[in-house]
Amino acid sequence: MAEKKGIIVVVSGFSGTGKGTLMKRLTAEYDRYMLSVSMTTRQPREGEVDGREYFFTTDEHFEELIREGKFIEHAGYCGHYYGTPRDFVDRNLEDGKDVLLEIEVQGALQVREIYPEALLIFVAAPSIEELKKRLNGRGTEDPETIARRLERAKEEVKYIDRYDHLLINDDLESCTRLMHEIIQSAHTAPARNTGFIQTIREDLERE
Amino acid sequence: MAEKKGIIVVVSGFSGTGKGTLMKRLTAEYDRYMLSVSMTTRQPREGEVDGREYFFTTDEHFEELIREGKFIEHAGYCGHYYGTPRDFVDRNLEDGKDVLLEIEVQGALQVREIYPEALLIFVAAPSIEELKKRLNGRGTEDPETIARRLERAKEEVKYIDRYDHLLINDDLESCTRLMHEIIQSAHTAPARNTGFIQTIREDLERE
Repeated sequence: MAEKKGIIVVVSGFSGTGKGTLMKRLTAEYDRYMLSVSMTTRQPREGEVDGREYFFTTDEHFEELIREGKFIEHAGYCGHYYGTPRDFVDRNLEDGKDVLLEIEVQGALQVREIYPEALLIFVAAPSIEELKKRLNGRGTEDPETIARRLERAKEEVKYIDRYDHLLINDDLESCTRLMHEIIQSAHTAPARNTGFIQTIREDLERE
Repeated sequence: MAEKKGIIVVVSGFSGTGKGTLMKRLTAEYDRYMLSVSMTTRQPREGEVDGREYFFTTDEHFEELIREGKFIEHAGYCGHYYGTPRDFVDRNLEDGKDVLLEIEVQGALQVREIYPEALLIFVAAPSIEELKKRLNGRGTEDPETIARRLERAKEEVKYIDRYDHLLINDDLESCTRLMHEIIQSAHTAPARNTGFIQTIREDLERE
C-alpha cells in the first residue's frame, strides 16, 4: 500500500451538511489522508496560520502562479483569489497520501478534467428539512443567508449524477467510516493496480 | 437501506485464490448477502442438498428453461449443464439482498450485458508464487491439473481490466472486510440512489 500513489478526493456538498467536519475527522483518525491547503490573497484572520488554514499570498504572486498554471482550480470571491496549488497536491499523491479537496461543484468538475482518476464525493444531509434545521441551528446566519444557501443547493443538486458517490451525513461517526471505506475501496480499481497486474501477467507468462 | 434494491456482485478469480471461502465467510458474517445457487443437470454428490449447493434438475427441464430465457448465464461442462437462474437472483435483489455470484470471466461479462449495474470483483492471490503454493498445498491435485489451472489463469488475467475491483486475498479476515466495504461503497453511487436524489430535488424546488 505504502508504495502506491494516493487518490485525489474531491468533496462537495450543500452548505450545512458538515463536510468540513467530516474531512477534519477523517484526517484526524487516519494517517493516510492529507487535507489540501488552498492559497488565498485575503488577509489572515485571527488565529489562522499560514500553511494550515491557507497559504497567504499577494495578488501579484497569485496572478503569476495562475499564468504559470500552478493551480488545479481557482476562483475569485469577494475581491480575493482562492485556489488549489497543484504542487502541494501532487507531492502528497506521490508520497502515497490520499489528498482531500473541499471544492464546490463547478471547481470539482474542473479538477476531474485535470485528474480524470479523481474520486468525486457529494455530501448531502438526510433531507432538506434536516438541512434547513442545521442551517438555522448555526444561529449565526440571517434568514437571507439561509435562503441564498438553499438557492445555491438548487443549483448544486443538478450535478450529483456527475459524482462517484453520494454520502448521506446522518451520523458523523458512521459517515466518517463510510467515507474512509469508499476511498479505500477505490484503491482496488484495476487502473490503480497496474503495477501488480503487470507483475502477475509477466510471472504467468514465465510458467 | 432495507428499502433499497440489492446489488448483483460477480466474483471471479484464479482457481486457488480462495474466492469460494471468501464468499461463504461474507454471507456468514453479514445478513445482507445471498449466495446465488446455480442449477445443474449433474447428479447430486453425497451430502449435497437440493437448493443449497445446487438446484438439481433434468436435461429436459434445463433446456426448457434455456429456451424460456430463465438463465442469466449458462454453460456446458463435462456433459452437464450449469446455469444461474434469473428468478432466484431477481427475487433476492428486490428483497434488498446483495447477491453474490461466483462465475468465470466469460460468464461474468455475459452477466454485465444483462445487468449493466453489476459489480465485478476479481480475486487474486498476492503473487503467482503464492498461487502455486496454494494449488500444491491442496494436495488433491496432480501436477497436470495445476499446470492446466495456471494455463487458465493466463487467459483470465487478460480480463482483469474489465472488472471494477481487484481484491488481493492475502488474509481471509481483512479480505472479507474489504470485500464488504467495496460492496457497501458501491451502494453510494448516485445511480443507486435515484429515489433519494429525486426527493431532495423536489423538496428544494418547493423552497
